[in-house]
Amino acid sequence: MSILKKEIHEQPAVIARLLAHEQGNVVDIAGELGRRFTHMVIAARGTSDNAARYAQYLFGSHNQLQVALATPSLFSLYKRPPKLDGALVIGVSQSGQSPDIVSVVAEGKRQGRPTLAITNDPASPLAEAAEFVIPLHAGPELAVAATKTYTASLAVMALMSVALAADDKRMDQLVALPEQVVQTLSGLTEAVDRIERYRYIEHCIVIGRGYNYATAFEIALKIKELTRVIAQPYSSADFRHGPIAMIQEGFPVIMVAPTGVVSADLLALAKELAKLRAEQLIISDDHPLLAQAHLAMPLPAEVPEWLSPVVAVLPGQLFGLNLAQLKGLDPDNPIGLRKVTETL
Amino acid sequence: MSILKKEIHEQPAVIARLLAHEQGNVVDIAGELGRRFTHMVIAARGTSDNAARYAQYLFGSHNQLQVALATPSLFSLYKRPPKLDGALVIGVSQSGQSPDIVSVVAEGKRQGRPTLAITNDPASPLAEAAEFVIPLHAGPELAVAATKTYTASLAVMALMSVALAADDKRMDQLVALPEQVVQTLSGLTEAVDRIERYRYIEHCIVIGRGYNYATAFEIALKIKELTRVIAQPYSSADFRHGPIAMIQEGFPVIMVAPTGVVSADLLALAKELAKLRAEQLIISDDHPLLAQAHLAMPLPAEVPEWLSPVVAVLPGQLFGLNLAQLKGLDPDNPIGLRKVTETL
Repeated sequence: MSILKKEIHEQPAVIARLLAHEQGNVVDIAGELGRRFTHMVIAARGTSDNAARYAQYLFGSHNQLQVALATPSLFSLYKRPPKLDGALVIGVSQSGQSPDIVSVVAEGKRQGRPTLAITNDPASPLAEAAEFVIPLHAGPELAVAATKTYTASLAVMALMSVALAADDKRMDQLVALPEQVVQTLSGLTEAVDRIERYRYIEHCIVIGRGYNYATAFEIALKIKELTRVIAQPYSSADFRHGPIAMIQEGFPVIMVAPTGVVSADLLALAKELAKLRAEQLIISDDHPLLAQAHLAMPLPAEVPEWLSPVVAVLPGQLFGLNLAQLKGLDPDNPIGLRKVTETL
Repeated sequence: MSILKKEIHEQPAVIARLLAHEQGNVVDIAGELGRRFTHMVIAARGTSDNAARYAQYLFGSHNQLQVALATPSLFSLYKRPPKLDGALVIGVSQSGQSPDIVSVVAEGKRQGRPTLAITNDPASPLAEAAEFVIPLHAGPELAVAATKTYTASLAVMALMSVALAADDKRMDQLVALPEQVVQTLSGLTEAVDRIERYRYIEHCIVIGRGYNYATAFEIALKIKELTRVIAQPYSSADFRHGPIAMIQEGFPVIMVAPTGVVSADLLALAKELAKLRAEQLIISDDHPLLAQAHLAMPLPAEVPEWLSPVVAVLPGQLFGLNLAQLKGLDPDNPIGLRKVTETL
């Protein structure tokens, strides 16, 4: 079995371990942070940046907090950092090594702001630079493409949102998540068998909106890393503002469409894409919508929209893994990538 | 002549007109805003969103202001807007019509925040929703793909940054810009003649960083809209965190590399790409770097880095226009797009 496949299937255990070990720590951090900030600034790259995209919708919707994604080069290269008045400054990095991400958190501390590191390595430079640390408890991630550290990062964001709001109902939903990840993975067996259809695709589009805007980005990144297929993520709204012009008959489009507030918008786009005779790969718990797909990737029905990104990314991880193997590529060691990327 | 070509060549006149008409207004707005905000939140889609990306580096570097890009669906679909304490809320839209962008500015006003509309239509719903308006003075933009309203939006951001900082030296640099746009366009004649080489490309990557991260996004969007070629924008840092795995021999990469703080980083990436035998199209004022390109797209040397996005996008506009024509496509009316896109 590939390391990547093993790590994909570790995700339920990682999230369960994280929730068991960090719930108290995160409640304490939320208590200590109190009213020390009015908005968040998050610095991250690659997969971690996609977790930050989730945070924008999560903290915006449930904690009424504006979340800005940092522009690290202003800190690291230009050395002209903005004033961070009112901000909680967060760095997210699996390795905790990338100097540009560390530089944003260090500047936050220099300006007297509260700072938080979310990392799989609590002894990393990022963790050392921050006032507070939440470890991911994912264990060593050996495949170059991140999977379990991504869903663990999402779970940390979810835990933090619940703790800041002291929301018992959402905490109960969060605790049910590991079992739902198991269900999702086992429900995808039939879809995985049909991925062979895509052996010769050269490009694809991945669409998501709201909470699952992050999922679209992360699935596109996995596909690019693992399969060398050119995959582009869009929100359904941005997609209509130009890129839809690219769609021709047979163009593969992955729709990330769990039931939620944005469903109607995605359904309308699915109809437009059907008229353009696009090839639709649909990730959803909505069975009438799945029935219209060329490849249906079903999700369990019980996952609330705010947690749906944790399950909705799984079909994309499996798609990347299996397509890589169908193409004769090594899913554990994509050509041209290293596990730890340090950028300035 | 196509409408698009005409509008591309109108850009020097538009920027000159904008500076002549709006300098006083923008200085007044900057004075009235004074200390009413500590950071900015900008709502925009498509081309206007790329102008917002420029604003992140511009106001961050020169005004020490953190700039967040809004997540419009939180306002329009989820109806769970974040608290905007401390924010100046800005909407950018050529038409001023898109309901999701209007909803962010309206919510800013409802929360008692200062609000600003940047639009080509001062009678639009966006302009009516905002406390302050800066019109683009671009005249009617008839080609579906935006060109002159993009550079005019950049010029408004530049004018606003100069006014907030009361920076006479940068104002002098800004006033020189229309003439530099003329020079850039006339200096690209030879490059334009060689675009035929790319008649059969199916995809490309566009790389920029810092100020020209925005330029990479905007050039990629023009190429997608006009030519149906799949074009993906990246910062050089994000590109190393995964997508570089896609690069194989002959893969076309457009490097947006005017001289500046990020030059060394882009130069290092250009060397890595040369080892991977990528096809490099380089936009720069650095002649040794241009000499290494498969297609050199020269810029004039005198443009300071903070204004370079206004000239660096021009080769991309001409690339999109000419490649569309070489492919027998109508550059004024790309298939599947309308001029005004209204999204919720």
